[in-house]
This record gives sequence, C-alpha cells and structure tokens, in this order.
Amino acid sequence: MPGTTLSRKHVHAVHHKPQSLPSDTLVLFGGDARPVTPDPQLHGGKAASLMTMTKTGLKVPPGCVLTTRMFRLQREDSQHASGLLGRSMRSGIAHIEEATGKQFGFAGTPLLVSVRSGAPVSMPGMMDTILNVGLHDSIIASVAATYGLAFAWGSYLRLIAQMVSLAMDIASPSGELKGCTDLSCPPKDAQEAEERCRKALSILERQGTPFPQDPWEQLSLAVAAVFRSWDSHRCRVYRRLHGISPSLGTACTIQAMIFGNANERSGTGVCFSRDPSTGACRLTGEYLAVGQGEDVVAGIRTPFPLAKKDSHSEQDARMTLEGQLPQVYAELKRTVSELEGKMHDILDIEFTVENGVLYFLQCRSAKRSALCALVSALDFHAEETITAEDVTRRISEQQITQLLKPGFDLEETKRAEESGTRIAVGLPAGPGSAVGRICLDARNAPTDTPWILVRSTTSPEDVPDMVRSVGVLTAHGGMSSHAALVARQMGLVCVTGCEALCIDAAAGHVQIGPVILKEGDWISVDGSTGKVYAGQINRGDAGSAWPLIERTLAVTDALAHMKVEANADTPEQARVARSFGARGIGLTRTEHMFFGFDRLPLIQRLILAEDDHGRAEALKKLEVLQTSDFEGLLSVMDGLPVTVRTIDPPLHEFLPKAGDIAQTAERLKISPARIRRRIAELKEENPMLGLRGCRLGILYPAIPLMQVRSLLRAACALKLRGADPHPQIMIPLTSGPQELHVHRTALQEEIRRVCDASGANVECPIGTMIEVPRAALLAGKLAEAADFFSFGTNDLTQMVYALSRDDAFSFLPEYLKKGIYPSDPFASLDQEGVGLLMEMAVKEARSVKPQMKIGICGEHGGDPASIAFCARIGLDYVSCSPFRVPIARLAAAKAGGK
Amino acid sequence: MPGTTLSRKHVHAVHHKPQSLPSDTLVLFGGDARPVTPDPQLHGGKAASLMTMTKTGLKVPPGCVLTTRMFRLQREDSQHASGLLGRSMRSGIAHIEEATGKQFGFAGTPLLVSVRSGAPVSMPGMMDTILNVGLHDSIIASVAATYGLAFAWGSYLRLIAQMVSLAMDIASPSGELKGCTDLSCPPKDAQEAEERCRKALSILERQGTPFPQDPWEQLSLAVAAVFRSWDSHRCRVYRRLHGISPSLGTACTIQAMIFGNANERSGTGVCFSRDPSTGACRLTGEYLAVGQGEDVVAGIRTPFPLAKKDSHSEQDARMTLEGQLPQVYAELKRTVSELEGKMHDILDIEFTVENGVLYFLQCRSAKRSALCALVSALDFHAEETITAEDVTRRISEQQITQLLKPGFDLEETKRAEESGTRIAVGLPAGPGSAVGRICLDARNAPTDTPWILVRSTTSPEDVPDMVRSVGVLTAHGGMSSHAALVARQMGLVCVTGCEALCIDAAAGHVQIGPVILKEGDWISVDGSTGKVYAGQINRGDAGSAWPLIERTLAVTDALAHMKVEANADTPEQARVARSFGARGIGLTRTEHMFFGFDRLPLIQRLILAEDDHGRAEALKKLEVLQTSDFEGLLSVMDGLPVTVRTIDPPLHEFLPKAGDIAQTAERLKISPARIRRRIAELKEENPMLGLRGCRLGILYPAIPLMQVRSLLRAACALKLRGADPHPQIMIPLTSGPQELHVHRTALQEEIRRVCDASGANVECPIGTMIEVPRAALLAGKLAEAADFFSFGTNDLTQMVYALSRDDAFSFLPEYLKKGIYPSDPFASLDQEGVGLLMEMAVKEARSVKPQMKIGICGEHGGDPASIAFCARIGLDYVSCSPFRVPIARLAAAKAGGK
Repeated sequence: MPGTTLSRKHVHAVHHKPQSLPSDTLVLFGGDARPVTPDPQLHGGKAASLMTMTKTGLKVPPGCVLTTRMFRLQREDSQHASGLLGRSMRSGIAHIEEATGKQFGFAGTPLLVSVRSGAPVSMPGMMDTILNVGLHDSIIASVAATYGLAFAWGSYLRLIAQMVSLAMDIASPSGELKGCTDLSCPPKDAQEAEERCRKALSILERQGTPFPQDPWEQLSLAVAAVFRSWDSHRCRVYRRLHGISPSLGTACTIQAMIFGNANERSGTGVCFSRDPSTGACRLTGEYLAVGQGEDVVAGIRTPFPLAKKDSHSEQDARMTLEGQLPQVYAELKRTVSELEGKMHDILDIEFTVENGVLYFLQCRSAKRSALCALVSALDFHAEETITAEDVTRRISEQQITQLLKPGFDLEETKRAEESGTRIAVGLPAGPGSAVGRICLDARNAPTDTPWILVRSTTSPEDVPDMVRSVGVLTAHGGMSSHAALVARQMGLVCVTGCEALCIDAAAGHVQIGPVILKEGDWISVDGSTGKVYAGQINRGDAGSAWPLIERTLAVTDALAHMKVEANADTPEQARVARSFGARGIGLTRTEHMFFGFDRLPLIQRLILAEDDHGRAEALKKLEVLQTSDFEGLLSVMDGLPVTVRTIDPPLHEFLPKAGDIAQTAERLKISPARIRRRIAELKEENPMLGLRGCRLGILYPAIPLMQVRSLLRAACALKLRGADPHPQIMIPLTSGPQELHVHRTALQEEIRRVCDASGANVECPIGTMIEVPRAALLAGKLAEAADFFSFGTNDLTQMVYALSRDDAFSFLPEYLKKGIYPSDPFASLDQEGVGLLMEMAVKEARSVKPQMKIGICGEHGGDPASIAFCARIGLDYVSCSPFRVPIARLAAAKAGGK
Repeated sequence: MPGTTLSRKHVHAVHHKPQSLPSDTLVLFGGDARPVTPDPQLHGGKAASLMTMTKTGLKVPPGCVLTTRMFRLQREDSQHASGLLGRSMRSGIAHIEEATGKQFGFAGTPLLVSVRSGAPVSMPGMMDTILNVGLHDSIIASVAATYGLAFAWGSYLRLIAQMVSLAMDIASPSGELKGCTDLSCPPKDAQEAEERCRKALSILERQGTPFPQDPWEQLSLAVAAVFRSWDSHRCRVYRRLHGISPSLGTACTIQAMIFGNANERSGTGVCFSRDPSTGACRLTGEYLAVGQGEDVVAGIRTPFPLAKKDSHSEQDARMTLEGQLPQVYAELKRTVSELEGKMHDILDIEFTVENGVLYFLQCRSAKRSALCALVSALDFHAEETITAEDVTRRISEQQITQLLKPGFDLEETKRAEESGTRIAVGLPAGPGSAVGRICLDARNAPTDTPWILVRSTTSPEDVPDMVRSVGVLTAHGGMSSHAALVARQMGLVCVTGCEALCIDAAAGHVQIGPVILKEGDWISVDGSTGKVYAGQINRGDAGSAWPLIERTLAVTDALAHMKVEANADTPEQARVARSFGARGIGLTRTEHMFFGFDRLPLIQRLILAEDDHGRAEALKKLEVLQTSDFEGLLSVMDGLPVTVRTIDPPLHEFLPKAGDIAQTAERLKISPARIRRRIAELKEENPMLGLRGCRLGILYPAIPLMQVRSLLRAACALKLRGADPHPQIMIPLTSGPQELHVHRTALQEEIRRVCDASGANVECPIGTMIEVPRAALLAGKLAEAADFFSFGTNDLTQMVYALSRDDAFSFLPEYLKKGIYPSDPFASLDQEGVGLLMEMAVKEARSVKPQMKIGICGEHGGDPASIAFCARIGLDYVSCSPFRVPIARLAAAKAGGK
C-alpha cells in the first residue's frame, strides 16, 4: 500500500485541523483526551481495553486509534482516504506529544511510539506490532544519553528488524541482513547492538532500500504494515477456523513508548488483584526494577515480588516494588483495589513505571486455576458484587472435574515422560488417576494392595472384579465400551483402547512394545489423559475440594430448571450420588445387581432350570436378595425418587463364556452340555436388536414381576417404619403403545397386590425408557400409558445411527478423523439427528400430557453440551453416573430455564 | 323381552291407522308399495337389497321392514315403542295380505311369513331367522290340502323347532324335546314329521309352555327373538373382531313365504348372469322343480341346469327350467340380461317359482374366480360399461397371485389330506407349488430332476444352491428370513419355520414326526399355504394366465401415479422383471453377484489377501466379471434405469462357516489359520449395526470404485454400440450428509474418469438408500447431495423397532398372537412408526428438491397395503422382486394418484 506512505513533507503540506477530523476515524486517549465510550467494533479490542482503563481512571500511556472505519476507507485507496489518514496520524501524534511533553522524532525529549493492530475480535499473536517508531540516526545519541547506550541501540535494532521484516518492501532479505536483524538472538551488549544496527543500515543503503530516517515515513510504513497484516495468510486461516468475518477489519493503535528501564525510578511488572492460584484476597505479582516487559518474558532477568512481605530475603525485599518505590506500590495497590471494586473480577494488570510515574499497559480478567475460579466466584458473590448467574458463567465443568479428580503430580509425570516410564497411551475413558498392581485374573488378585484390572475387554461378568479394583485398563474398546461405561458409573479410573497391550494371561504377563510387566507389578494409570506409566506416581488429594464445590453448586443450583438425578445400582453408589447432590435415582439397572457373586448363580439357575420348580426356587431366592437391595436404595434416597428399571439385557449375558462353562457347571451342578445347549438356544445374530428389555418381561413375566414385588415390599416395609420411599418403575426397550399397556397392566396388578397385602399405601409411578426410535415416533400414544419418560440415549443413538457401540471401533475413529461425524455421538449427543427425534417426542408427549415428567438417563446425562440441549428441549431432569452429578448440576445451572 | 309379545287381542285392541305410521320405523315393499330409496343403515342390508330389486323392476315376495330405528325404540321398552311396534306389524301384515291375496293365520289361503334379521353391515350367519310364522294347528289341514302333507308338517316342525330354540322362553329344553325338534336330522316323510310335531306340542303343553297357536303371538315372539339376537355372545364377538359398532342395531324383515314346492308349476333355482368360473358371457345356473331352496342346500335332491342345452341327457333336459316352464325361463333370461345391463356386474340371483309366477329372492354381485374376475372386468370395460377405475376396484392382488402361481390340484390335495400324506405345515414364505426330490447338500443334488433344498436355515453362501432348486424348505426362520427373502426375490417356492423337521444331514435323512424321508425322496411343497406333502402332487399350469393379466394391467396402469421397478441382481431376473412390466431396476444387490461360484473365491481372496498385490489382483478379476454382469443387466433394461447399489453386507458374510474353512483354505491355497484369524478380526457383536454399507466403502474405497468402474465401463461400451443404458448408483447405509458427500465425490470422480477415457457421455445419477433412521431425520440435508432416495424399509424397520429380522422369531410370534404388534412389520409396513419417519423424510427432501425422485426398494415394495401407503406419502416408485411386479402394478393403480 505504497499510496499511504507519506513523506514528512507531504504530511506537513496538509493543512492540519484536529477539530475537523471525524470521530469515527480517529480517537485520542490518555493525557487530556476526553474519554470516549469504547467500541471494540470500531476501536478494536486493544484500544477499547485501553479506553476502558482511562475511563476507570487508570493512567495509560497516551495514544490514538486509527479506527476500523479508517481501515476500510484506506483500503479503497482514494485520495480522500489517503489525506484523511495523514491528517489523523498528524493529529494523533500532536496529542501524544502534548500529553507526554516529548517530541516525535526530535532529539532532546524524543517521543517514540508503538504501532499495534487491534481487531474487534481477539486474534492473539496473529497480527503485527512495530515498536520504537520515531528512532533514527540523528537522535540515537540523545536517547542514549537518557536511557543508556544499550537501551538506545537495542531499541533501534528492534525497530530496524521489525521494519525490515514487516513494513519495508524487501522481497527476500539477504542472509547477512537476516543475521544482524534476528531478534531471537538478542545482542549481548550495547556494542554488539550498535554494530548490528550499523551493519543493517549499511546493507539496506547498499541494496537501494535505505532505512527511512524520517520518523513520519516510519510511522506511515508501520501503520500500512499493521493494516496489511489483516490479510496475511495466517490471519485468513485463523479467521476461517474461528468463523470471524474478513470484513471486520482491524484498527491501529499508536501509543507512546514508556520505558521501565529509563532510570533507577523505573521498572515494569505484572499483578493480579487476587491470587490466581488460590483465589486468596491479596494483591500478588512480580516487579522488575529498571527493566522492560520483554526482559521478564525472555527470562533474561528474574523478577521479584511486589511486596516486601512476599520476598524470601532481606536483599530481595529491597528489590520489590514496595522496597524500590513505596509510593508507587501504594498507588498500585489502591488503584487495583478500586478497579476490582468496579470490575467485580480478578484483574490481570501489566504496568510500567517510568521515572516514578505509574502507567498501566494492560488490564484484563485474569486466567485462574480451578480452585481460584470457585473460591473467587463465591467470594464475589458473598460480597454481593456478582449474581448467581455470574458465578455460573465464571466456573466451568472442566474446573469441577479437575478439582474432583486430581491427576498425577505434574512434576512426577514430567519426569516419567522424560525417563521413558510412560509405556503406553490409550483412550481417557474414566477420569482421575490410579496406582495399583497389575491383575490379569481376579482369582490371582492381591487382597492387601490396590490393583488395576488389565484385560483385552470386559463384559458384564467382569463387573464384580471391576468393583474391587482401583482402575481398569483394556487393550480394546472405545470411550463407550463396556469397561468405560461401568468405570464411569462407578467412578473408577479407566483407560480403554490401549492397543499396544499384548496380554498373555497364561504366561501371566503383559507386553507393551519391548516392555514386559508381570502380574503384580505396579502401574499408574491416568484416566483423564489415557496415559499409562510403569511404577508408582504420586497423586494429588481427592475429595478435599468437595466442600468448596458443594458451596458453589448451592449457589448455582437455584438457576437450573432441570433436576439432576443419578444412575445408581447399589446403596453405595446411591450414597455417593446423594452426597454429590443428586435429587433422586433416575436409573437403577437391576441386572447389575444380578452380577453380584451371590446372585449370578441364582440368575444362571433361573435361566438354566429344566422345570418350573427349579425356576421358582431360584426366583424366590433372588426375590429375597432384591428386596434387601431395594430397601438399601430406598433408605439411602429417602424422600427422593428411585427409578428401578426392570430386567433389560439379553439372558445370554448372564451365562458363562466358553472358557468358564466347566467351572459354572461344577458350581451349579448342571451338566456342561446343558449350559452349552442353552447358550446356543439364546445365541442371537444381533443381540442389541433381539430378545431383551420389556420383550423379555412380556415373554417371561416372572422376572419383572419378582422385581416389582421386591421393590414394593421394600417400599411398603419402609413406609410402615415411618420412612418416605418413592419407588418408580421403568420399562425398557418399549417400541409401541400396546406393548407398554400390556406390560404396565401386569406390573400394576402386582403393585396393588403387594400394597394390599402389606397395608401400606405406596405410590409407584410406572414409566418407560424412550430408547427405540419407534417409541420416540409414537411418543404421543405412549404418553397415554406412561407416568414418565426417560430417554435412553445410548441405545437411541445406536439405533438412530445403525451403529453398535461394541463394533464402532472398526470405523468410528476413521470417521471422526475425516470429519464425517462431527463428534463421537456416544460422548456428546447428536443434536441434529437423535436430538431432533427427542425434541419431536417431547412435543408429542406434552401435547397429550402437558405436565409429564421427562428426562434422560443415558451416558449423555453427564455431558455438558448434551445437558444444555436437554434443557433447551424442555426435559425435567438428567440422570448420570454419581461421579458426574456435580458437573451435571453446573451444566443444568448454565442451561438455566428457571 | 316379554313386553313386546302381543296377544292377538292386544293387537286388535290397538286402533289401526296405517297412514299414521312413521316411515322411519316401518317400510313396505313388493305388491303395490311405493318404492323407497334403500338405506342399509335404516333398513338393514337384507331389506335394502330387496328394495333395490323392486326398484329395478324385479318381482320380490312382498314384505315389510321394521327398521333399525324401530329396533332402538323398542330397546327403550317404553309404552309408546311397544304400541308402535304392534301397529307396525299389523300394518305390514295387512300390506302382505293385500299383495298376495292370502290371509295371515287363516285357513283357506293361509299366509305364512319369514322373520329375518338385517344389520346395516353384513354379519353372515350370525343372527337369527324364523320361517313359516303363521302356521298353527287349525290351518295345518288347509296348508296340507294346497302343498301336501309332507310340506305342511315339515314346515310346522321347522317353525316349532325354531320357536323353541330361539323365540320361546325355555331355559333348557329336555332331551326329548331336543330330539323331536332337531332339524339337522330331517323327518323321512310326512308321517314322521307329523309325529314329531305332535310330540313336541304335547311336551310343550305338559311343561307349561304351550306352543302359541295365535299367529300374532308367534309373530311378536319371532320379531323379539330376531331383535334380541343382536346381543348374542357370538354377535358381540363378531362385531369386536370386525370393528362393527354395537350401536348400529339390526332391522327385521317380515316377508311372505313363497313355496317352490306348491305344485308342478313351481320350483326354485340360482343363476349367474355370466359364468363365475370362466367369466364366459352366458346365463348359467341350476333349477329344482317342485322344490325349495333348503332341498338344494341340504343336498337331499340334485338340481338340474337352467337351459336344455346345458343338460347332459334328454331326460335331464326335461327337468330344466326351460323344459318345465319355457315362459318363465324366457322371463328369467330377459330380466337377468336387463338387470346386468343396469348393474354392469355379474349377478348372483336366487329365484322361486310358485304356480308359474317368478319371484326373485336375492340379487347380488356374484362371487367369482380369479379368472372370471379378470375376464369379466376386461369384458365390461371393453363394452364401455365400466371405467378403468372400476376394473381396478374389481380385481385384487390375491387374484393375480393365484393366477400367476397355480397351487396344487385341489382334488389331489384333498385326497392327500385325507390319506395323511400331508406331513407338516410351515410358514408360506414363497408362493406357488413345487414338486421335487429332497436335497440336503447341493453336492449330492440330482442333476436330472428338480430338487427341493431342505435345510435348517439358509445363509448367503447357500444362494447358488437355492438358484438351482425348484423350492426351499427350512426348519427355522420366519417369512422374512434369509431363505424367504431370497426365494421371493427369485420366484422360488418356499416354506420356512417348519419346526417339525429334524434334519440329520450325516444320516442323509429328514424326520418329520414318525415319518422318515431319505435324501432323493419326492416331496411336494405348497408355498402359498405352507403345507408339505410326501410324494408328488399334480399342479395347475403356470404362466398361461399371463396374457390376460397383462391386458388387465395395461388398463389399470394408466391410473397409477407410482412406477413399479424391480429388485434384480442378474440379467435373468431383469428379463423376468421386464416381461412382467417393470419400468426399471430399483435395486441391484451387487454382493449377490459375488456369491456366484466363480466370484466367491475372488472376493474371499480380496478379504484374505496379505498384501496390496493380492488384493489388486483379486479386484482386477472381479472387475472383469462385474463389467460383464452390468453389461447384461443394462442390455436387458435398455432405455430404463438400472440402480446398482454398491457393496453392502459386512465382509465376514463372504467368508466360510466354521465347518467349511478347511475346504475354502484348500481351494484358495490359504492357511486355515489365516482364514480363522480374519474371521475373528471381522467378527462383530451386532453386525447389523456394524461395518457395512457405505462405511465399508469409505474405509475400503477400492471395492465400490471397482464396482462403479465396471458399471460405467459397461454403460459406455453399450452407448458406443448405439444402446441406451441408464445406470444409477445407490449408496447404502448412509447416516449423515457429510458421509454421503465424501463418498459421492469419490464415486463421481471415478465416473468422470471412465467416461473421459471411453469417450461416451453417460449420465449416472447417484442416490442413497434411506434405511438408517438418522438418514430419514436428516433427509433435507441429504437431499442436497443425492439425486434420488430409495427407502430400504427392511433395515429401517429393524432400526426403528430395534428388531433384528434374524432374531425376531424368539418373540415376534408371541407378540402377534397377543396383538402387541398389529402385524409383522417386515411383511406389511408399520405405517404409524416407520411410515411416519418416511413421510417426514419425503416432506423434508421435497422442501429442498421438489422434483426429487423418491422410492422404496425394501420387501414392502411388493405388499399392497404398503404400496398404497407409499402412494399416499408421494413416492415416485416402488421396487420389488420381479415376481411381485404384476401385483405391485395393480396395487399402484389402486393407490391411484394420477
């Protein structure tokens, strides 16, 4: 854009009338400039922030903004725009000269300026900045006299380097020129800086592109370069990635350079209005006397604390801001405190002191640790300076996860990475960290130490073994494999799909690449990153953050329309869920109870029985156990709903695998042939689409009737003892209204019988899962025969996508890599497909029963994006694994609706 | 309802004013009664038909109707209704007396009447009728004088018997009373009739329930009985089964008895205006001189033809109507001919002649054979008396099936049933009949005789064996099992789910109950009834009816909006489809081609190859074969679209079963271990929801690209030779827009490459199956990347119901039995669930592309109810198996839309 490069002469030729310049092309700030309402669209984010700072009374280095409108005008390349741009720069510099008492480009009190981009939307590091504009041969001695030789030549070198690479039209700098202007290799001393400057200037002279000695020409070139950088390749890519419109354009900020290294009464620093690690309510930060920000960033010099009391030694204390410039420290402390009182947020402030004068360079909301985020949000809320909505916005689900599930010690993992004890990486399937001994077969499991179950995959029969381990590591399966689902349900640490594992159970060892680990060896598994380490790595403290989380969620809960319930199969899980604030149990998978070591033989006997007598006997024993299970659940959840799903999985899941038939046969005193025959009978091509859910219940009503009897007997007994049980029954895999009606009628009769017999009056609503697409399509008709709906989005996703969770590993990773599916639909709800169907179903159901309770109990119930969607379509509750309850509560609050 | 029983005295006491009776409670017909517009709702079907006959000029025995309104009034049991009913009967009888010149209940010219029910909707045989009302001791002699003793006492016995069982309030008749009034054991002669009458009368007298000698009391009791029968148990059940409202009520018709046995100039008969077996255009029927309808029905006497020329002997000719009463015959012939001219339909007429006077008792549209239905519909249409719409209405899909697929000779099957050679009954899975030798293993199959493949189940590997058999019989699987689907596709006779079969392949025999049949023994299989016979049974002639069907469909096709295409995988199938009038191929399953004996080893090699070289070689050989396959298909369908679906099934379907691994290994020269390993790698928990369809194509693009290349090379070659090929490519199992876009782009590039290389310009639209629920939900977005849609309703039904076709046998029969599902959703489209989803998808797609071609290629494409639904939601075509094309064409015409 050579047309915008103005010579000093040219600028001087233009008649200068500051008052006549339109306010939408030039804005002044700092000094005596009248504060203007910041408008990031017009002024860019950088200048808007500086303007905000001046409005709040902070002293910022004076400057001016060439607005985005100016940007758009100059792109038209018109005579008018060119003139306007020149007049604007002139007027802006005049303002800065007046405010600083310095003069642009003149020895004596030379004014140097920075020229920075500033887009309406932050594009960190994408666009160009040129510092020290205004420095040239004639004034270098004057600058050196004030700031020292090293500073003068160092600043000049920076200007020359930036002008060469960004502003001057030099197609391909020679290696020699590159060498002497390479800022990544800073000059050792003043002498080297001067030598490199002189060399660069002479090369430029020699090759016919002399370095502009006219500061106005420097300024014009710098402004043009900043504007031009909007169209750079990397900016275009960044905008496309982040969906930023290319028509926004950038503003350009020209600001006086302030030198923290000007003299002994100068320095630079960073401070936070509160401690960004702990949230503690005190000014914290670093200060470097006689230094510039770059010195700190480049790590050339080590800064000191701000306050004396924070320093480690007497000597250090002298070097603090308080020690060096006590009045400035006091001013900083007061100003920051006032500012926080206005902003109601932790502030991250950059400042520079030049000759005892404090300037603020940047002021923004501070990045903070999870702990600090919660502590400070609660503190601000307690101070009544922010609302519950603000609290909700200021904290994230990731922060809660982080606080709940501390990972391994960062230093130790770093060392482990370096020393090669990280032996594999799988999928992060159950967050948290676990340290334990390798166990390949639960029969060999050590009883006295924690162990980690290492398997190719897991199946329902492995659940009892999983319960007793501290972590699970599998060679195959994805983030929604059986192992992953069960682990998350139980809060176990889990890594799946660790394909590098070769398990040789017979030899009792595991091979990972060249490493061989024996059963009993220690490993450390990080379920948040998927990393697996040999040996033991120290962990942070789990649970200590819960009181803080609890207090925070107590504030945010009030905003949530949706309740959070939990999926829990045992009193222990229910207890965890309730302690995490679950408002009920949205799903009890009764079959999980059947996998207990004392129940599995009974359900196996039931399935394998040759006659009614055998079946009845097994059923009777199961009933006793289930009744006590339910009594436990209902007791823990006293006063809250407990939703019990009748038997769901295909019966063959309860029978042993081929290798375990002999053992099962012996235990049950049933011939292996009989077991094999029954397994063959129950074999299905596609068990997911076979005899399961309420189909089982309709064909073999004895099982669900036993379950309903157990539940109601437990509830009636509790009621008679003065408790407040709220049992609910949920029917799985319903595919049509008649099916629901038939099944419901049978169950209702059983409920009435138990209540009549016990004399207790227990209400027991009966609802249905909506997990078959047809159920969603016929939701209006199903609503007539259901007291509530719960979307089973795991299965619904499988059917809607024709995608078996167990088999998806064969192509889902490739699909995600190629962007064919935007995300794993088992991890985050597919809103446009599955979600559309859910939305239709909710509408239909509510058109029949406007007050119907509708929720979700799939894995998605713990995923924030999915929870937000559920709130949007009007669900009443989400039910997730106990350990996800806090996260779900926050997500529900964020979704709002109340 | 004793309140409606009126004594003569009571009736006489009512002041009789016929003109004052409301026309909505009593209607008169016959004699001089003014014809009234028949209204079945008010008059009942029976009377409405008689009234129609009088209106068209037929002489019917005079009578009156007590309407359904009268029925409802008398149920209120009010004084008013009781009086009205009495006055109505009186008035009606007065009309009949006047019209016949006889007198009710008086000797001399005694009038007897029938009292019949008549509901608005036909409920054949459900409600009661009482004949000969008015006969009593005092006039029996007079009746005998006119009609003979046997007639008089026989009639009296019938009246007494019907009154006892239906009208008189006798709780439980004694065995003695039952014995003498048992009409199923008719009296031998007048003497026996008289004796049984007298005995019954004396028993009734003795037990205090004397037989009413007052004809008016008889009439009142009879009317009350007819009305009461509306609420009988069997009527209630019938109404519930047929969805008839119980509030309709029944009318009651009182009509003069006409006696075909009055004298020599009397008789009774039935005639059809055309031959109901062949449709031949001539009066045909039977006549019985001096007889009554019951004589013919009871088979006591054998009737003679109507016309002399139809009789077998001179003697018979004398006994024809023409021989006995030539004028009456002429009148009948003329009247029927005139009547058909008005009704434009084949008429079924009952008539009686009393003393030379011809009365018409019934006139209705004749039941007819399939042959007659088509012949007569075409004839009427040719006579321009009925429209194409009428033709469409008058013929059914069942009739076409029957004509296309003649079953076994009826006489022979009857004998087989009686002699016990019917050995089993399974499910009628592929219509038609087949006779062949049992073949358990195709390797033992006789080459010189037809054979029937008998298996437990079939799988894709059995397809080549199925092709070479005349029928398939399986022990397991339903009407949509693999065997059934493939059989219907190929037009093979098929019986599935014949659970009585025990196949012992090793012993080479089949046991069915006590019967053991050896491999090679003859059996006869009826795929329309599911029956299986030992030995050979003669069959009708297939194919001879096709010209007639073709002419009929040529008339009806004009009404159809939807086109009918066919699912065909080979040129042979395409030829059949085209000969049956298919307008294109809607689905070619390319994988079916792979099961050919020369291709299976190639695809197996492809899957088992250890390196790229092996894969490339197998692919190259397959390409040559596929190119020739496609050339064949495109040639046969020249000028019509051929829609080729890229590879769909999971790869493991192409690998051998456990028992065949060794053989395959030897043939391919690949180690059995390698095959076993690959089978294990490809094993899936739920293959239906796994790696198949376009997922395969995206992971292993080489296969679909080879297929596209073959198709386009074939098309280009044909085009260059002057033919008119219309290839189309269809992508299976699409679940989202990005997936379709990626796959389509790759295929389109391949198409362009082939066209560019050959120099031929062949258009090749690319569409997608809609068989995954998500595809239906996202139809609007998919429409942007598809040229056409084809609903794969088989898979769509599986996903929408979460119901695997292969596993449904475990509960679907129970569900159908219990009415939980109204019908097998694989046989007839589930309109409220799957259909709703289809309807939504069509709307969405058309909102994006209003002219988009959308069809269906699932099995439902051949089901009339499903076809009607497809027309209703606006599909453009249905594609079904070649042998279903004629039926689908008729169903499409019935659905109309043009």
